Amino acid sequence: MVPLLAIFYFGGYVLFIGVFILALMALKEFYDGFRAMDVKPAYFIGCLSAVGLYAIGLFRLDTKWYLLWIFLTIVLAALYLFNIDNRKLEDALATITGVFYIVFFSYHLVLVDQTGEYRLMVWLVIFSAFGTDIMAYFTGVLMGKHKLCPKISPKKTIEGSIGGILGSVILCGLFGWFFMHPYFIHCVIIGVLGGVFSQIGDLTASIFKRKMGIKDYGNLIPGHGGVLDRIDSILFTAPMVFYYIAFIIC
Amino acid sequence: MVPLLAIFYFGGYVLFIGVFILALMALKEFYDGFRAMDVKPAYFIGCLSAVGLYAIGLFRLDTKWYLLWIFLTIVLAALYLFNIDNRKLEDALATITGVFYIVFFSYHLVLVDQTGEYRLMVWLVIFSAFGTDIMAYFTGVLMGKHKLCPKISPKKTIEGSIGGILGSVILCGLFGWFFMHPYFIHCVIIGVLGGVFSQIGDLTASIFKRKMGIKDYGNLIPGHGGVLDRIDSILFTAPMVFYYIAFIIC
Repeated sequence: MVPLLAIFYFGGYVLFIGVFILALMALKEFYDGFRAMDVKPAYFIGCLSAVGLYAIGLFRLDTKWYLLWIFLTIVLAALYLFNIDNRKLEDALATITGVFYIVFFSYHLVLVDQTGEYRLMVWLVIFSAFGTDIMAYFTGVLMGKHKLCPKISPKKTIEGSIGGILGSVILCGLFGWFFMHPYFIHCVIIGVLGGVFSQIGDLTASIFKRKMGIKDYGNLIPGHGGVLDRIDSILFTAPMVFYYIAFIIC
Repeated sequence: MVPLLAIFYFGGYVLFIGVFILALMALKEFYDGFRAMDVKPAYFIGCLSAVGLYAIGLFRLDTKWYLLWIFLTIVLAALYLFNIDNRKLEDALATITGVFYIVFFSYHLVLVDQTGEYRLMVWLVIFSAFGTDIMAYFTGVLMGKHKLCPKISPKKTIEGSIGGILGSVILCGLFGWFFMHPYFIHCVIIGVLGGVFSQIGDLTASIFKRKMGIKDYGNLIPGHGGVLDRIDSILFTAPMVFYYIAFIIC
């Protein structure tokens, strides 16, 4: 997690390039996961699409560019199927889904970083995910009795889930109190929402892995899986923080 | 095709509502096509997402709303998988792809209609698709010798394809000459691009149907398939016309 913390600390171009690289690594892992299902997404199309999205972010382009980006991503995925003998429909569907789920979701870190006076809130993305993870684990171990969703993730409990939300609120609240005092209440609310979205992100990744028949997305950090296993919660907390800033605070 | 012509003629709210309804009908057909592959996309999520997109169009909202729309569409598709025993991964992938391919692509008709002084160019969307279809057919029958892509669509020939582009140029050029004289050259260029995109749209639909193992998307018009069979080219010419206006003319 150290590279991630450094990326967040510096912000700006460091965050921009760092998140871009992490997104491409996570996308590779996601697409590799599909190979276990004999589905072969087009990684080069995913990368091309990511470059397009980040170009839009770099030059802060307007709506029509985002729409064009969606259009071209789908067209490329469709053209990929033109080699009809060697492609399955699922190859294109998985390519498209990977672009939005991994590349687009993580791209919200860049968007939060570009919000000017609210850019420090990028820390809330990571603190809500961490706070949820850590507190959910300890509350679950100490007090967990009722299963949350045994078919998706057998060890998770309702008690752990509530503890996780609390953990997110505490970390985000502390951060808000000390570093963004005028926005303390907003940080607490983001903490609550972050605790929920973080768990949706975690469960979504679990569902994908379960359906793909894999345990981890990769083995970058031995015993801790790949990049995507580390950022699965962040994928969902990053957009949440961005839209909270864009729609509620601004 | 008469309802489509009426929708184009009136424009404004008639076009807005008409395209919305056609999009939902086409989406239903697209999702039904997946059932032949034992994939069950979530039609209600597709409809919900379509309502969101059209709300953005109605109130002409800005970038962050479009981004939120993408985010929520993916989140809903992910939540759909939480009923893990009854869902396959492909259900969510197909749901997402349908929203972008059918709902988002056809939505560009609304965007073209909203361009103010260029709104008449919405006719180029349909003329390039029609011109291509008709001329490709006759050129193919009369002069067709070399197969274009026998594995996707066995009857199509290179001669027909070139004739199709010509047909699109002629119809769009005539329309430009008589109704948008100051933009005549742009209409001719749109005719060329429309001839290409129209055929990509047609072939994309053919690939989907072939992979789904169906002949037509529906049977709304006996012998002519469903809505989606009628608008498969338009799905690709509509965005092309919109981006041409937004990036080249404006």
